[in-house]
Amino acid sequence: MKLEEIIHPTLLLDEQKVRNNIQKMAAKAKESKCIFRPHFKTPQSHTIGEWFKEYGVNKITVSSIKMAYYFAVAGWQDITIAIPVNVRAIHEINALASEVKLGVVVESERSILELQRGLTEALDVYIKINIGNNRSGIHHSDTQTIIELAQRISMMGSTRFSGIICHAGHSYQARNKAQILNIYEAVKTDIQKLKENLLPALGQVFISLGDTPTCSIGEDFTFANEMRPGNFTFYDVMQYHIGSCSLDEIAVCMACPIIGKNRDDNEWVIHGGSVHFSKYDQKMEDGTPDHYGYLVDLNENGWTFPGRGKRLVRLSQEHGIISVPQEEFDRYRIGDLVGILPIHSCTTADCMGSYTLVESGESITMLR
Amino acid sequence: MKLEEIIHPTLLLDEQKVRNNIQKMAAKAKESKCIFRPHFKTPQSHTIGEWFKEYGVNKITVSSIKMAYYFAVAGWQDITIAIPVNVRAIHEINALASEVKLGVVVESERSILELQRGLTEALDVYIKINIGNNRSGIHHSDTQTIIELAQRISMMGSTRFSGIICHAGHSYQARNKAQILNIYEAVKTDIQKLKENLLPALGQVFISLGDTPTCSIGEDFTFANEMRPGNFTFYDVMQYHIGSCSLDEIAVCMACPIIGKNRDDNEWVIHGGSVHFSKYDQKMEDGTPDHYGYLVDLNENGWTFPGRGKRLVRLSQEHGIISVPQEEFDRYRIGDLVGILPIHSCTTADCMGSYTLVESGESITMLR
Repeated sequence: MKLEEIIHPTLLLDEQKVRNNIQKMAAKAKESKCIFRPHFKTPQSHTIGEWFKEYGVNKITVSSIKMAYYFAVAGWQDITIAIPVNVRAIHEINALASEVKLGVVVESERSILELQRGLTEALDVYIKINIGNNRSGIHHSDTQTIIELAQRISMMGSTRFSGIICHAGHSYQARNKAQILNIYEAVKTDIQKLKENLLPALGQVFISLGDTPTCSIGEDFTFANEMRPGNFTFYDVMQYHIGSCSLDEIAVCMACPIIGKNRDDNEWVIHGGSVHFSKYDQKMEDGTPDHYGYLVDLNENGWTFPGRGKRLVRLSQEHGIISVPQEEFDRYRIGDLVGILPIHSCTTADCMGSYTLVESGESITMLR
Repeated sequence: MKLEEIIHPTLLLDEQKVRNNIQKMAAKAKESKCIFRPHFKTPQSHTIGEWFKEYGVNKITVSSIKMAYYFAVAGWQDITIAIPVNVRAIHEINALASEVKLGVVVESERSILELQRGLTEALDVYIKINIGNNRSGIHHSDTQTIIELAQRISMMGSTRFSGIICHAGHSYQARNKAQILNIYEAVKTDIQKLKENLLPALGQVFISLGDTPTCSIGEDFTFANEMRPGNFTFYDVMQYHIGSCSLDEIAVCMACPIIGKNRDDNEWVIHGGSVHFSKYDQKMEDGTPDHYGYLVDLNENGWTFPGRGKRLVRLSQEHGIISVPQEEFDRYRIGDLVGILPIHSCTTADCMGSYTLVESGESITMLR
């Protein structure tokens, strides 16, 4: 890519890093004989979807019906919408399910009844369980409710009980690999126990799981049948602080022009705000201030990390403020381009709507 | 609008409330003999732009070159880009300035030199001053630097020194009308003093200001020449907590389907996450938890406020969690639609990309 051609806030993508991340996760899933069904809410891109196919992926996860349509149009034939089903969208679900093998998620009798009322097509139905994240789902210890729901699903003509789905999102509270592994072990234990408890009534139940931290750091997933991480595709500063990845594995970077400098405060002002980065901040526990991303130096082939102490410290709608050590204040001038590794790559990509490949400078589109 | 036609997370807009907000601010500007140059980063919509014209508006503010193009295409002929100029975009600035009366903002000699190097068209140049917000700009007390920059701008063939621009963004720290008025008074005093200091060297200098809190609560703006608020168009929960507006004046509301319910925690799960709302949270100082918006009840004509204690308390990428009092848990069922007043309407609109009018159900588009 040619840096002089970058004028406005631009989301850079390092294809080789993405491919390394995909390859590693695909190999891990294969090792545990798990289906690898990556969550495409992160890339949201037809082009990046094609890269996944090269690593044997033919089943995907999405987080909305709109996203399911976007990928169905691109030829994906096996799609799970991994969010409790929106029963208001029954007509769209029927239309989608008539074209692709579609999976949806329920966590209550009410959703099943609503589906039963309107469904005209065959549908895979997963039961969402709460494995510690406490966002949604039936608690993993509530065997009786899970069995009743599974039996209700099986009683419907056009739905099939396809298994249990969970997301150990509490792994996002971890701050090192040991903490991630503690959560991984607890999930493994709880899942194994649940499988035993369900065995008499339901037989061997299919288990789908998929948060990026445990999938990145855990090794053995033979206790499950499917892995659905998404964020690992790009990783980001949040995952780095959780302990899921190295800084080198982060595959996206915002390029932003410097539009002002405040010498008294050792700050650079960039064009690049919450409409570009999204407003996720990284809480710091080492006494340094919370921030919105790390500064990197851009070059024609990507970016390099210039060491700590240079962070995006404030973010309004279109402006960002980077704090730098006094001795580095003159390193960049107004009109120069700086790179920022984002806190949450999924939402940054969602805000930006396209990627620029660092290798070729080519722009690739996303769902909008 | 017909609620049964709303399937997915949808941003509702109450046109009458928008018109009331515009009418009130336009009248206030007129009263002080100020130019009313509203900031269109909030609505980002051609249709809403047309509504402004009905209240006499023919000059606008935007926050990016892309936004300036979007409104230039719709026929706006007088546009100020109120963010320090991105000198990398000189070709786009020339192209725009050849079509419309274009204003840009500088805060350093460096930006002026870069403009001088590439500019081929006439341009209005404003100097950004820091009036207490500490985001960017020359401190209002630094008369000498302001004079030098103004003289440099005037020395350029194609640029005209058009005045001083400021944004009292520290008013967003206020939590009641008295605190807003304290900031308003300080800004007024500082501006009056600056004008006196600049008088001998520069004559009467044009003053443009424009944060929503002081523009909403202050009455007399005869000390300035131009008002540029934007957020007042819709207001939001943040402005309500600052003290800028009543809850009734908030003109946008997210409609989201309930997709799950957690009885043990008295929580409803909605489809509606940070990709819809953006991730701005409202810090609460009354001991109640920080939150992402207030629950409202939807009806065919808009929404009503069902009282306190029902808030969007957690937000992930696509899910939101609403906390409700135990006795209200059964008030809504899975598949029902609830309304949420957003924390920051500008970024919620930017995430959503379109509005649905509560009066007609018609959808209106935005810049994407």
